[in-house]
Amino acid sequence: MFSLLETPRNLVKAALGKVKADLIIKKTNVVNVVTTEILGNWDIVIYDGYIVRMGRINDLDKYVGNRTIIINGEKYYCIPGFIESHVHIESSMLNVREFGKLAAIHGVTSIIADPHEMGNVLGIDGIKFFIEESRYSPVRFYFEVPSCVPAVDPSLGLDSGGKIIDAGQVAMLMQDPGIIGLGEVMDFISVLNAKTEVFVKIASAKLLGKVIDGHAPMLSGEKLDAYLVAGISSDHESTRAEEALEKLRKGMYIFMREGSAWKDLEALAVLITRYSIDTRRIAIAADDISVEDLVEKGYLDYIVNKAISLGIDPIKAIQMVTINPAEHLRLDDRIGVIAPGRYADIILSPSIERISVKSTIINGKIVYKDGEWLYKEPGIYNYPEKVRKTLNIKRIPEPYELLLEAPIKHGSVVVNVIEAIPGSALTRWVKEELKVDKGYIKCDLDRDIIYIAVLDRHHGSGNIGRGFVKGLRLKKGAIAQTIAHDTHNLIVAGTNTNDMIKAVEAVVRAGGGIALAIDNEVRALIELPIAGLVSDKDYMTVYDQLKYMEEVIKDYGVNFNNIHMTLGLIALPVIPELRITDKGLVDVVNGRIIEPIVKII
Amino acid sequence: MFSLLETPRNLVKAALGKVKADLIIKKTNVVNVVTTEILGNWDIVIYDGYIVRMGRINDLDKYVGNRTIIINGEKYYCIPGFIESHVHIESSMLNVREFGKLAAIHGVTSIIADPHEMGNVLGIDGIKFFIEESRYSPVRFYFEVPSCVPAVDPSLGLDSGGKIIDAGQVAMLMQDPGIIGLGEVMDFISVLNAKTEVFVKIASAKLLGKVIDGHAPMLSGEKLDAYLVAGISSDHESTRAEEALEKLRKGMYIFMREGSAWKDLEALAVLITRYSIDTRRIAIAADDISVEDLVEKGYLDYIVNKAISLGIDPIKAIQMVTINPAEHLRLDDRIGVIAPGRYADIILSPSIERISVKSTIINGKIVYKDGEWLYKEPGIYNYPEKVRKTLNIKRIPEPYELLLEAPIKHGSVVVNVIEAIPGSALTRWVKEELKVDKGYIKCDLDRDIIYIAVLDRHHGSGNIGRGFVKGLRLKKGAIAQTIAHDTHNLIVAGTNTNDMIKAVEAVVRAGGGIALAIDNEVRALIELPIAGLVSDKDYMTVYDQLKYMEEVIKDYGVNFNNIHMTLGLIALPVIPELRITDKGLVDVVNGRIIEPIVKII
Repeated sequence: MFSLLETPRNLVKAALGKVKADLIIKKTNVVNVVTTEILGNWDIVIYDGYIVRMGRINDLDKYVGNRTIIINGEKYYCIPGFIESHVHIESSMLNVREFGKLAAIHGVTSIIADPHEMGNVLGIDGIKFFIEESRYSPVRFYFEVPSCVPAVDPSLGLDSGGKIIDAGQVAMLMQDPGIIGLGEVMDFISVLNAKTEVFVKIASAKLLGKVIDGHAPMLSGEKLDAYLVAGISSDHESTRAEEALEKLRKGMYIFMREGSAWKDLEALAVLITRYSIDTRRIAIAADDISVEDLVEKGYLDYIVNKAISLGIDPIKAIQMVTINPAEHLRLDDRIGVIAPGRYADIILSPSIERISVKSTIINGKIVYKDGEWLYKEPGIYNYPEKVRKTLNIKRIPEPYELLLEAPIKHGSVVVNVIEAIPGSALTRWVKEELKVDKGYIKCDLDRDIIYIAVLDRHHGSGNIGRGFVKGLRLKKGAIAQTIAHDTHNLIVAGTNTNDMIKAVEAVVRAGGGIALAIDNEVRALIELPIAGLVSDKDYMTVYDQLKYMEEVIKDYGVNFNNIHMTLGLIALPVIPELRITDKGLVDVVNGRIIEPIVKII
Repeated sequence: MFSLLETPRNLVKAALGKVKADLIIKKTNVVNVVTTEILGNWDIVIYDGYIVRMGRINDLDKYVGNRTIIINGEKYYCIPGFIESHVHIESSMLNVREFGKLAAIHGVTSIIADPHEMGNVLGIDGIKFFIEESRYSPVRFYFEVPSCVPAVDPSLGLDSGGKIIDAGQVAMLMQDPGIIGLGEVMDFISVLNAKTEVFVKIASAKLLGKVIDGHAPMLSGEKLDAYLVAGISSDHESTRAEEALEKLRKGMYIFMREGSAWKDLEALAVLITRYSIDTRRIAIAADDISVEDLVEKGYLDYIVNKAISLGIDPIKAIQMVTINPAEHLRLDDRIGVIAPGRYADIILSPSIERISVKSTIINGKIVYKDGEWLYKEPGIYNYPEKVRKTLNIKRIPEPYELLLEAPIKHGSVVVNVIEAIPGSALTRWVKEELKVDKGYIKCDLDRDIIYIAVLDRHHGSGNIGRGFVKGLRLKKGAIAQTIAHDTHNLIVAGTNTNDMIKAVEAVVRAGGGIALAIDNEVRALIELPIAGLVSDKDYMTVYDQLKYMEEVIKDYGVNFNNIHMTLGLIALPVIPELRITDKGLVDVVNGRIIEPIVKII
């Protein structure tokens, strides 16, 4: 139990050797991120989760008791545990426990998480449940209140949407000790228009001295300045060095983003390698990272290594995931530095030119060592039942109900079609001629135009939005999923409506997830019962399920990695050009629902 | 009026040019302390005290209204207003208004003040009055609660002392918005012994997220680590580079001290010029600075120039009085950086190689320009009457009452004598033979041994401590003053008791101050009616009074600059070796009162 009085007094005693240490790392190489030195042959003494003593200690014996664990650190560098500056855990489809585990294995000991998706599906409860679960993890999770739930004003009628987190709820939640600040303020339009709602959200964080993180893609000049005077202090959306440099010059913290979907590190690394600037306000964030990448490549260890390979000095790269974000978060008295009085969050690596996490220590406990997970969780968090019951679909539609009707029995029509762009969040709005058969518009596999539908899964309204999507490269079957940003309705795309319904049924039965149906059979299923977003399985199971699904898709000749990620963005009515929601096709630029049929031929 | 909601909304409008600017600095050279660049030909737009827009602005005209002041910045560098990291205002003998004025003239726009002396004389009221007065100054004063009032536990009986600020009062005062944290924790013995009292003080700051500044001269190894785990984050007492480097490596902020009495900058500058370390945790502080130095040399402008002349890169030196302390204080969202959303605290200098403050802007107002003070104070703070009545001396003693009696009528005795060391806070404990005449021990001017006495001025007890001091070089007359660290009793040293009483009388009549009496006449007087520490006059008057007193002393052949500063430390019973209080001679090392007479000859 931490006590403001007793804990530091006990630490003083431990520093003086009056009580014995829990853990000692002997004769190691400390990566000092304050001075940017490597301190060779140093000892680190740990007590009650804290570093209490460090240096070349002559009388080290006095700290050693019967139960003191001693690590010979000679061959290792001791690096402060990494800090993830901004991530949406949900993108990994892992729950907090499993995400934390994979993170720690890859050297990440503190995570700033913005549970934006949980918020959209479950409102503030979703965030509270994540906070609850995080208490079972050794990793330090610091949550941010998502600032833009929902992404689109429901009164516009573009989307039935999930939950709302209004300014009052933000202000209430802000007081939770598990909350470190306000998550990326995406709605810069409201900021620039000085709308009250967003300023109340910002003020609620400011008032409590909490952080306000930004999201300012392409903002520059007066718009950027206006965004900044609102009190927003960071950005992770820069894609070019010049963009990031302007933001740095204007006092922002810049998180160079390198996740599964967005990779900006290479473009931004020149900030450090070409310009000779102070790097104290540069950090690194993944933003979104898949379980595949986490398992196959790693996490911040991999990203820091990439930064080093791009020419950034190793200690400077390490500063970007330690002291720099710690200072941004005003947590540098606790994390991000190996020093007396800080949490004993340390990773051991045989090299700093190429980091390879041999061991991870969090709060003075060795949680991971030599490929083995050693931490004994205090239990498994049981999500309340409501978390597993987020699919409010009263009746599975008949296959024909997913089809668009035409005002003619036979012939052709020109329809508005969404064209997916692999590896991009953007879509193209194209017009395509399609055949009509028995009054229904038919897909055209030869031209890679298939059916798509979005079913309201929140309100039991029976709403179905119908349309066509081009470019998903699906040759057979259908895929359905409850990951559909940001409201996460049930989206389904397919080559035929029978498989589409089969896939929908499987997802509904699972309480959420991703299902692949081919020839009237469910061929792969990833169950995501937690809010329809996240698995309750261990990370290797989720990884295997995902790999299996991809193999099945490949067997059918589809060469489209992460089809579920592309599909998951097609319902997001805030990124141009054309989208689909349960209300129908959305012209994003003009913010309106449009008719699918352009003309009858 | 600042509003968490309305202020930022108005700033957004101002950034977009929807309301007109108050002040624009055109085509200037911005010293960017985030990136360490000079940004040439940049414009800065200021509204309502804040920077709202910066860059090379093409459409600058849209910010210009009828009442917009425009400064042509072409020939100047715009530097963020300097931050003084740690100072005791009282050492200047100036009140807060006058200190702030001199500070601003020399580029200092934010001051972290530890009103330790006011606290000793007036308790928490003294601190509150300083906070009150600071509200009339354009300079941002951030006060710290002095952590060690009194310096010595009164129960030891070494000193009758002034006021006490106990842990409960510290905790209460900590909640005042004028308070930024806990002042230098000097009592490292209590920290190392894990005493409750000091940990309550630390916890009260920690709990509110406020800063806890340190004072750790020569602390190293396990003692330093024990001091740090208590939660203390800075130090300004390092005198050698190696000492400072150890503290930096252990995560502390280091303030390189360069004041009137202590000059550590040269020794510490090698940290930056010789070692190639990150300097983000290095700041600069004066600690104590005299009105003489302020008027004749300057303030942080002078000290930064000295740092530059010692080989520190100008922008790095500027970082040490801007962004670095701002980050330490967690105020970098407001001060220390020229960027949108920050206070418009800017100084203009024609050079950064050698800073010369041409103009100072605070909160968007030009307070100083071309040698002229332009700020109109909203009024003059009237200290409550009790502040002017801190001398509780019921009866002026007769001259003979200042003499030490001997148990013999005539002959010689060996006495314990305090030897002052010019330019050092230390004293030496020497034993000297002195003559006895009519039962009283006599001084010996030939050997520079004169009378010294300390009169209780707080409790009206009539206590007088008597003794001899060597090395003050006074040839005639006597000097009395109510500046006598830390309890600030009335201390008087002289060549004869008539002049001593004359000087005491003058000080008592003035309600505190420094008086010089020669040949039964008061020849110079600096009235310090505010707590007996601080003048209510303008800074030039105080400067002139001090210079005049020094001239008079020099006329009498005394070559001893700042004799009052040396005298002011002789009563401080926490620095070795021998001291005098109203209770008598104090053996500091053993913490006890000793007899003045060693033996009779």
